Amino acid sequence: MARRNRRTRRIVNAISQLEWRNVVNAYGPINVLDDEQVQTIIDSALGILETSGMRFLEPGSRARLAGAGVYVDPETLMARFDPAFVMEQVALAPSSFELRARNPHRHLQLGTGHHIFASVGGPAFVSDLDKGRRPGTYAEMCDYLRLIQSLNIIHQEGGGPFEAMDLPADTRHLDLYLAQYRLTDKNCQSYALGGIRAKDSVEMACIALETDRDALLEKPALLAIINTNSPLQLDIPMTEAIDELAAAGQVCCITPFTLAGSMSPATLAGTLVQQTAEVLAVVAYAQLVRPGARVMYGSFASNVDMRSGSPALGTPEYTKSALASGQIARRLGLPFRSSNTTMSNCNDAQAAYESQMSLWGSVMGGAHLINHAAGWLEGGLTASFEKLIIDAEMLQMMAEYLRPIAFSDDELALDAIAEVGPGGHHFGTAHTLQRYESAFYEPILSSRENFESWQEAGSKDAAMRANTIWKQMLKDYVQPPLDAAIDEALVDYVERRKQESR
Amino acid sequence: MARRNRRTRRIVNAISQLEWRNVVNAYGPINVLDDEQVQTIIDSALGILETSGMRFLEPGSRARLAGAGVYVDPETLMARFDPAFVMEQVALAPSSFELRARNPHRHLQLGTGHHIFASVGGPAFVSDLDKGRRPGTYAEMCDYLRLIQSLNIIHQEGGGPFEAMDLPADTRHLDLYLAQYRLTDKNCQSYALGGIRAKDSVEMACIALETDRDALLEKPALLAIINTNSPLQLDIPMTEAIDELAAAGQVCCITPFTLAGSMSPATLAGTLVQQTAEVLAVVAYAQLVRPGARVMYGSFASNVDMRSGSPALGTPEYTKSALASGQIARRLGLPFRSSNTTMSNCNDAQAAYESQMSLWGSVMGGAHLINHAAGWLEGGLTASFEKLIIDAEMLQMMAEYLRPIAFSDDELALDAIAEVGPGGHHFGTAHTLQRYESAFYEPILSSRENFESWQEAGSKDAAMRANTIWKQMLKDYVQPPLDAAIDEALVDYVERRKQESR
Repeated sequence: MARRNRRTRRIVNAISQLEWRNVVNAYGPINVLDDEQVQTIIDSALGILETSGMRFLEPGSRARLAGAGVYVDPETLMARFDPAFVMEQVALAPSSFELRARNPHRHLQLGTGHHIFASVGGPAFVSDLDKGRRPGTYAEMCDYLRLIQSLNIIHQEGGGPFEAMDLPADTRHLDLYLAQYRLTDKNCQSYALGGIRAKDSVEMACIALETDRDALLEKPALLAIINTNSPLQLDIPMTEAIDELAAAGQVCCITPFTLAGSMSPATLAGTLVQQTAEVLAVVAYAQLVRPGARVMYGSFASNVDMRSGSPALGTPEYTKSALASGQIARRLGLPFRSSNTTMSNCNDAQAAYESQMSLWGSVMGGAHLINHAAGWLEGGLTASFEKLIIDAEMLQMMAEYLRPIAFSDDELALDAIAEVGPGGHHFGTAHTLQRYESAFYEPILSSRENFESWQEAGSKDAAMRANTIWKQMLKDYVQPPLDAAIDEALVDYVERRKQESR
Repeated sequence: MARRNRRTRRIVNAISQLEWRNVVNAYGPINVLDDEQVQTIIDSALGILETSGMRFLEPGSRARLAGAGVYVDPETLMARFDPAFVMEQVALAPSSFELRARNPHRHLQLGTGHHIFASVGGPAFVSDLDKGRRPGTYAEMCDYLRLIQSLNIIHQEGGGPFEAMDLPADTRHLDLYLAQYRLTDKNCQSYALGGIRAKDSVEMACIALETDRDALLEKPALLAIINTNSPLQLDIPMTEAIDELAAAGQVCCITPFTLAGSMSPATLAGTLVQQTAEVLAVVAYAQLVRPGARVMYGSFASNVDMRSGSPALGTPEYTKSALASGQIARRLGLPFRSSNTTMSNCNDAQAAYESQMSLWGSVMGGAHLINHAAGWLEGGLTASFEKLIIDAEMLQMMAEYLRPIAFSDDELALDAIAEVGPGGHHFGTAHTLQRYESAFYEPILSSRENFESWQEAGSKDAAMRANTIWKQMLKDYVQPPLDAAIDEALVDYVERRKQESR
C-alpha cells in the first residue's frame, strides 16, 4: 500500500478543512498573576532547590551535577542548587528555535508567537464508536498516523498516538518511528522512555532527513516530553533521554506532572512553585549536558478530585495553572508547553467543555506547544478516533478566532449597508457575493442543519458524524512521497536494531 | 403545592453546587481591535445614522424624534441623526445600575465588573431526553423555572424559558410573570413584545416588590431585551416596550440580531458598524422617552453559513464579535450584553464547544449580562432540560476560573513541599487535610470515574447524567416564601387583566 501510494499525487481531501497554517496569537496573554506574584513563585522555587533540592536517581547525572559544583547528598540523592547557578544555566537556554520536518513547508517555530498543535501521545488504549475501547494494534496506530497527516490543523505528531500492543515492548518504538516517517511528512515527537529509544530517534532522524548529527545539532528535528516524577524527582529513563537528546541538540520539553493534592500541595500557588522548581532543576541539568541545550517549560498542573483521589482535568484550576505557567515561562525566557485535556470517558459534552477549558488556558497562556491537542480522551488513557476529529474542529475554530478581524474601507462595508437599507437583505449583494467562499469559517464537523433535516438524516450527534469523517479521511489519505532509498535505509536500521535486541 | 412549600424552610439541595455568588472578572478583557479601530467603528456608525439613518416604524416614535429636532423622512420613515446629538443622548445613559430582585440577597449589579448569568429566554420548543423535542406546556415551563431557581449559578431568569403553548398567546405573559414571582426569588426579565406585556410586567413588579412606580423609577427591577429588526429598523412592538419601560425607569437591553451575510454585511467590521449604528439610534430614542433611561449595548453578531444560508452560532466569528462589541460598549460607557449560543440540535460535543466559544467571548469581552447563559439549544429554538444542567456546570467552571489564584505564605506551601520531599505524596498531609473540602472546584455533572467504574454504572454520557440531575433537583426544589397577600394580589391582577382581554 505504501508503495502504491508513493507514486500517487497529493489530491484534495474530500473533507473540507483549513489549509496548513501557522497559528499566531496577536491577542494574548491573559495574566492571572501580577508581576510580583510571578517573581515570588520563581524565588520560592529557587529556595526549594537551595534548601531541599531535587532527587536525581541516575548515578551519571549526579556525577555530572557534582562535577559542576552542585552539592549532591550521597544519602538522599538530593542535588541542592545555588539560585544564581540555576539562573545562569537557564539563561543559556535559547528562547526560540526551529524544529525541522521531513517536509520543509512543515518546519515548526517554537518560542515565537506561534501555537504548535500536537496530536495525542502515549495512551495505552484506542477507541472508536464501532469497536469501543481496546488495546490498539500497529495497523490501527498506522491508521491514526494517516489521520494526523491528513488533518492540516495538526502541526506535529505527538510521539505515538497509542501503544501498538501487538508488537514487542522493547522494539515497538522502532516500528513507530518508521511509521512516522513513512505515513507523515510532519514533525514527529521522539519517545523519551530511556536512552535507547531516544538514541534510535536521533539515528533515524538523520536517515529520514538525509542529514548527520552535526547538522542536526544546528537544526533540531526532534522534541521529547521529559516528565519528572513529581514531587522533586527525576528518574533514570528520563535522565537517559535528556542525556541523549540534549547532547544531540534536540529539544527536551520538561514537564512535571503535578496533580495538586497528590503529587504537589493542594493549592495552585504551591503547585506552581513545585512545578517551577522541578523545571528549573532539570533545565539546569540539561545545560550541563550541553550548554545552550534546547528546553521548554512544560506544565501539566491540575488537581485531584478530593473526594475520590482521581485526577481532575480540564478544570478551572487547570485553566488558571496554564495561564499562570505561561507567565512564569515568559519571565524565565523559556518556550512554554501546555495541553488539551479531559477526564471524560466518551465523546460527550464533558469531553468538549473540558477540552475547551484546557485549550483556552493554553492558547491565552501563550503556549508555544499545545500537546495532546487532538485525540486525547479518558485522562490520557485512550486515543479516540472520533475525538481526533472533534478536537481538530475545536483547533480550527481556535485558529480562526486568533485571526484578527479584517479591517479596511471595504470590510467596513458602509456602501453595502447604505445599498441594502432598512429591512433589506445582504445575501445577494455584490459585497456579499465577492466573499461567498471565504467570508466565514467553514466547519469540518459542526452541523448547522435545522432540527427536521438533522432528524431526517438520522439525528447524528457530533461523535457519530466524526466517525463518518475519519473513515472518509482514511479513504482519501494520500501517503506523502518518501525517497525509496531513504525508506530502505530506515527499514534496514529498524531490522538491524531488532536483530541486536534479540 | 405552592402553599405547602411556602411554610417549609429552605433546605440544602441534594445536588452539590456552588453557593450563590457575584461573579467578578479581575482578568479581562481580551482586546481584538486597537483603539483606533474601535473609534472608526463608532464614527462609521454615526456616519450611517447621519446619511442613511434608521427606520422607526411606530408613528409616535417618529413624532418624538421630530420633536427633538431629528429629521424624519416622511416617505422612508428614516430618522437621520446628527452625530453630536446622538453622543449627547448616549452620555445621558448611566454606565451602571442595580436591578432589584424579590429576594434582597439577589439584587444584581449591572455595568460594574460583575457578570450576570441569565437563563434561556424565548424558545418555541422544550426538550428533554425522555420526551424529546416538543411544544411546551405551562406545567413544564413551571418546572423549568423551579430549576432556574434551584441553580445558584443562574443570577437572573431570562424572560420565560419557552412558550407555554397550552395557554392563549395574548395572556400567556401574565401566567409567566405570576410563575416567575411565585417559583423564584431571583430577578426575572420582562417580556418586551409590545406595550401591553411591558406594562403588565411593571404593574406586577410593583405588586411583587410591594413598591410603586415612583420607587421603581429609582430602583429598577426589570430588564427587557429589545431587538432591532436588522438592518436599521425598529418595529412597533419593540418601540412600545421601550416607551413603557424607559418611562418607568426599567432597563432596555438593545440588541440588534445581526447575522453577517444576511441581516448585515458579510464582514465582521461591517457588522459591528451596523450593530453600533442600530444600538446608538435606539439608545438616543430611549433617552428622549426619559433622559437618563437605563439602556445596554447588546450584541448578537454572528454569521450565516454561506453554503446553506442558515445561522451559524458559537463560531470563531461570534467569539471575535463579542470581544469587539465589549470594546465598543466600554468606549461608549454603556453596560454590555452578550450570549451563550449553539446551533447544535442535541446535547453533544458541538453544543458544548460552541457554548464555550460563546462564553469565552462573552466573559473575556467583559459582558455584564450573559443572556441565554443556561438552557439554550438548537439556535435558540429549544430550551433543553439537560442543557440547563450542562450550561450550569460550564458557568460554575467559568466562575471558578474567574476567582484569582489564592496567594499567601500558606498557599505557597513551602513547608508542605519540604515535608513531603521527593517521591512522596501530598494526599494525607496536614496542609492537604486542612483544605480537604474546599481546595478545588467540585463539579455538578462532570464524571471523574475511571473507565471501568463508568462503564459499570451504565456508560452514561453528560446528557444522560444531566437528565438524572435535573429530576433530582426538581424533587429537592423548595419554593421561596412569598407573602400570601402578595400572592393574592398578583393572582387578582392576572385575573382582572385576563377578564379585560376577553
